[in-house]
Amino acid sequence: MEVGFLGLGIMGKAMSMNLLKHGFKVTVWNRTLSKCDELVEHGASVCETPAAVIKKCKYTIAMLSDPSAALSVVFDKDGVLEEICEGKGYIDMSTVDAETSLKINEAITAKGGRFVEGPVSGSKKPAEDGQLIILAAGDKALFEESVPAFDVLGKKSFYLGQVGNGAKMKLIVNMIMGSMMNAFSEGIVLADKSGLSSDTLLDILDLGAMTNPMFKGKGPAMNKSSYPPAFPLKHQQKDMRLALALGDENAVSMPVAAAANEAFKKARSLGLGDLDFSAVIEAVKFSKE
Amino acid sequence: MEVGFLGLGIMGKAMSMNLLKHGFKVTVWNRTLSKCDELVEHGASVCETPAAVIKKCKYTIAMLSDPSAALSVVFDKDGVLEEICEGKGYIDMSTVDAETSLKINEAITAKGGRFVEGPVSGSKKPAEDGQLIILAAGDKALFEESVPAFDVLGKKSFYLGQVGNGAKMKLIVNMIMGSMMNAFSEGIVLADKSGLSSDTLLDILDLGAMTNPMFKGKGPAMNKSSYPPAFPLKHQQKDMRLALALGDENAVSMPVAAAANEAFKKARSLGLGDLDFSAVIEAVKFSKE
Amino acid sequence: MEVGFLGLGIMGKAMSMNLLKHGFKVTVWNRTLSKCDELVEHGASVCETPAAVIKKCKYTIAMLSDPSAALSVVFDKDGVLEEICEGKGYIDMSTVDAETSLKINEAITAKGGRFVEGPVSGSKKPAEDGQLIILAAGDKALFEESVPAFDVLGKKSFYLGQVGNGAKMKLIVNMIMGSMMNAFSEGIVLADKSGLSSDTLLDILDLGAMTNPMFKGKGPAMNKSSYPPAFPLKHQQKDMRLALALGDENAVSMPVAAAANEAFKKARSLGLGDLDFSAVIEAVKFSKE
Amino acid sequence: MEVGFLGLGIMGKAMSMNLLKHGFKVTVWNRTLSKCDELVEHGASVCETPAAVIKKCKYTIAMLSDPSAALSVVFDKDGVLEEICEGKGYIDMSTVDAETSLKINEAITAKGGRFVEGPVSGSKKPAEDGQLIILAAGDKALFEESVPAFDVLGKKSFYLGQVGNGAKMKLIVNMIMGSMMNAFSEGIVLADKSGLSSDTLLDILDLGAMTNPMFKGKGPAMNKSSYPPAFPLKHQQKDMRLALALGDENAVSMPVAAAANEAFKKARSLGLGDLDFSAVIEAVKFSKE
Repeated sequence: MEVGFLGLGIMGKAMSMNLLKHGFKVTVWNRTLSKCDELVEHGASVCETPAAVIKKCKYTIAMLSDPSAALSVVFDKDGVLEEICEGKGYIDMSTVDAETSLKINEAITAKGGRFVEGPVSGSKKPAEDGQLIILAAGDKALFEESVPAFDVLGKKSFYLGQVGNGAKMKLIVNMIMGSMMNAFSEGIVLADKSGLSSDTLLDILDLGAMTNPMFKGKGPAMNKSSYPPAFPLKHQQKDMRLALALGDENAVSMPVAAAANEAFKKARSLGLGDLDFSAVIEAVKFSKE
Repeated sequence: MEVGFLGLGIMGKAMSMNLLKHGFKVTVWNRTLSKCDELVEHGASVCETPAAVIKKCKYTIAMLSDPSAALSVVFDKDGVLEEICEGKGYIDMSTVDAETSLKINEAITAKGGRFVEGPVSGSKKPAEDGQLIILAAGDKALFEESVPAFDVLGKKSFYLGQVGNGAKMKLIVNMIMGSMMNAFSEGIVLADKSGLSSDTLLDILDLGAMTNPMFKGKGPAMNKSSYPPAFPLKHQQKDMRLALALGDENAVSMPVAAAANEAFKKARSLGLGDLDFSAVIEAVKFSKE
Repeated sequence: MEVGFLGLGIMGKAMSMNLLKHGFKVTVWNRTLSKCDELVEHGASVCETPAAVIKKCKYTIAMLSDPSAALSVVFDKDGVLEEICEGKGYIDMSTVDAETSLKINEAITAKGGRFVEGPVSGSKKPAEDGQLIILAAGDKALFEESVPAFDVLGKKSFYLGQVGNGAKMKLIVNMIMGSMMNAFSEGIVLADKSGLSSDTLLDILDLGAMTNPMFKGKGPAMNKSSYPPAFPLKHQQKDMRLALALGDENAVSMPVAAAANEAFKKARSLGLGDLDFSAVIEAVKFSKE
Repeated sequence: MEVGFLGLGIMGKAMSMNLLKHGFKVTVWNRTLSKCDELVEHGASVCETPAAVIKKCKYTIAMLSDPSAALSVVFDKDGVLEEICEGKGYIDMSTVDAETSLKINEAITAKGGRFVEGPVSGSKKPAEDGQLIILAAGDKALFEESVPAFDVLGKKSFYLGQVGNGAKMKLIVNMIMGSMMNAFSEGIVLADKSGLSSDTLLDILDLGAMTNPMFKGKGPAMNKSSYPPAFPLKHQQKDMRLALALGDENAVSMPVAAAANEAFKKARSLGLGDLDFSAVIEAVKFSKE
């Protein structure tokens, strides 16, 4: 199977490398073209513009850093729109909001092309290991034709229906994550201030029905006040805000997520926005006693 | 090793049976004495009063239903206090509040006895399988002498320091559990009202960093509005209230737990107190649209 | 002083009538022109388009129903923009968001005109009585020239600085109002469920340091479950959401407002969105016991 | 009318003085007897023990500093219980919890005496001006006989039913007050961080439907970060906790009060517990940006 691949950041590079390793013919493009070299050594072809990739390939996957990059690659000069047409499929796996996805979808389908959004759950390591979780939505036929690629990139792909649903599902997952992180933080601080060992709390949690990789992975660092940014707190707070807005649209009252969101805001006001979202524990901990 | 065992409810029966199976000599007592019969068939001895068990055994374990039963077995006529003395150890594994533990501890140590509180995390199944988690506190030497028994009863025992710490640790664990359950519930309802499949949400959560036995075990039933009471909602709410009170004592502000506690209260007001605590999702879900 | 007046809804009609009564020469316009008749009987002139009003008058006040009406009167054919020019002032007293105000301001100043936003606090009765509170922002000189009109329309006008500040101040006032209404509602329900008279609670509050016209005005009706919509709950909730968004922009954590906002959402989900915002008490009250 | 009066602190002194001024014959007692001198100059008699006051007077009013003082005056040697008997009435106007009131009530009625609890709303100034609000409960006939005294001490007295209801009503009033103070604080901080003048916000609030003596009295000081303790924050937080506990008993979910309570806890952890409860704004304000 031949695919185009737009965007060779940390994620995109790992993903396109996996496709090559599994026998896909891959044509890459990146804004800074020199980043393509390593892929070429492993057998990739290169094009100089997104439009050229689209022209060459029936299927093109994109993995871009943010909504503005995702839009620019489609709508700017030499962009996807110039060559997209009937018979071609565009699969955007960048993490963008539903609105951005809908805008790209509209433009592509207006030209006769097909579109799937496919944001992923998982970061660098799962991308390298082909263990991402893919939250896809949009053109059902294109999704099905993409499954061979998705099977290489992730451990599981979900088809969620109309465009926008992938973005929404990701927000919901992240909202649960943010509330859980606050629950965990409050527990750790309470143990500590009550004269109990927070390390022992981690051990106890780890043996029980709540044991999960996130507590296990982040807890020990949190007990050492170490927050290397895997997922920056300000992005987690933004996702909580957007999830609460989704609740607002649908009249779903979510007092726990709302309280967690305000805790993340407090953490931002304490200058912790660029640290890992687990740094919210510092807002819980903060006192003068 | 010879041990006494007071209380043969669901938990106590499973636990004393495990001790027998592992070669302990066990002398049992239960308020309704006939409940001892099954244990006797497996080799246990019986005494007619708690005092008699204490007199006979160097170590006695208790597993009673609630604080008032725990107090009654110690302080009433023919109770533990009548025979406890230097050289004897009493290990109360019932779930009681710190105050009750402290009261029992004071009375026993005043008579020269030694005391360990050891509330457990885990219910019927882990009790049968010897897979409880034991949160012990009190007399350090007695704790160490109890380890052979704890190793049979649980997969892990923790020594947490002074009497009361076992009870406190259990509250903190349950507080985290209550907040997590609310986070989970809000996410499921939001998915549902946003037109996404809540079953798919469960699948996605299960593949990611938040996967945990509680979500996995309770999620599918929650999606079917089924809440058979493993841990009744009213008890969960009580534990959250007590954990918040512990935070109050130590000036720890816990807005997420507080919001979760109010959600459990709302669930109680909706008549859900006797169902499993996962029924809190009904309070989130409730609407007239 | 001669002024134009665009928009003769409940508010606009009362306001322009007040201007006439106090000797202003007023030229009115309304989308449905027949609504101008009553004003004409009291001495007003009429123009057939917003543009014509602007052309005729040095100062024009607008009081329109919502942001889209406010934008349409300015940007559509025969709108304000066609005639606004150096030497002319436009004062928009409609309740709109900061963004809408900024857009109108930009267009008007680009043509050399001057702009003041002046949302009001107060509804029909204060409008009729000239007792509004005017939250003005924008061109300082225009504000000062408008004071004679503001003195007729309101009991007090504030100059708040740059365009957008009027809208923001109104959101903050409404946010406090929404949280207070929840505090009041929780207290009433708690009294009631604790076996105390909520009517007596109102009497006690009325005699103490918290006495205020809102509690006094709405409390008795709330105790009778009557919520005639003075300010619809869905609008109150929208303002809370926007105020929380303003807090988000400025990293201000506001857990009480966030909890109040979720209560209003719950009330919306119970079908109370079109009732007065005091109907939030129904969400607090709701139970099955 | 002749009355006894126990306790001559700030409140008690002002209250007994008012009774003297209005022609009551007053017999006073205070733990530090020298504090009685000033009252004697104005015509009061003195007794050396609470028991002696009770023996001498048909009606005795108490105004003590806290529950333990209230209990001690009744139950200790030379206390109220030694002389209370049929035909005598005891009116405790101290601020105590419902439990303390019930305990005193039980002991007094067991001796044939009659009891009314009458906690007040209002502090030093209203006490001096005879403008307290009296929240009475207990023996209905005694209440009615006490009205002449209550009319001198307060601007209004309420009869609330069974003993304990006075204490409960006071908690509810204070809970509303605590939530309102948080609503106010969040609004002030939001104005400030959004580039608006918080002084202007106070002016605007003062003109609208939310205007109330508390905002008016405390707002200007809060804008200067001045919190002279009229009602200490730690006492306000304790009352919120007790009000939430009352809600817990009655299954009333109060998410806004719960959020306010956690904000007061955070303020305590910042070392603000002894300042006025308006210092909660410092917890809202706190940031590192």
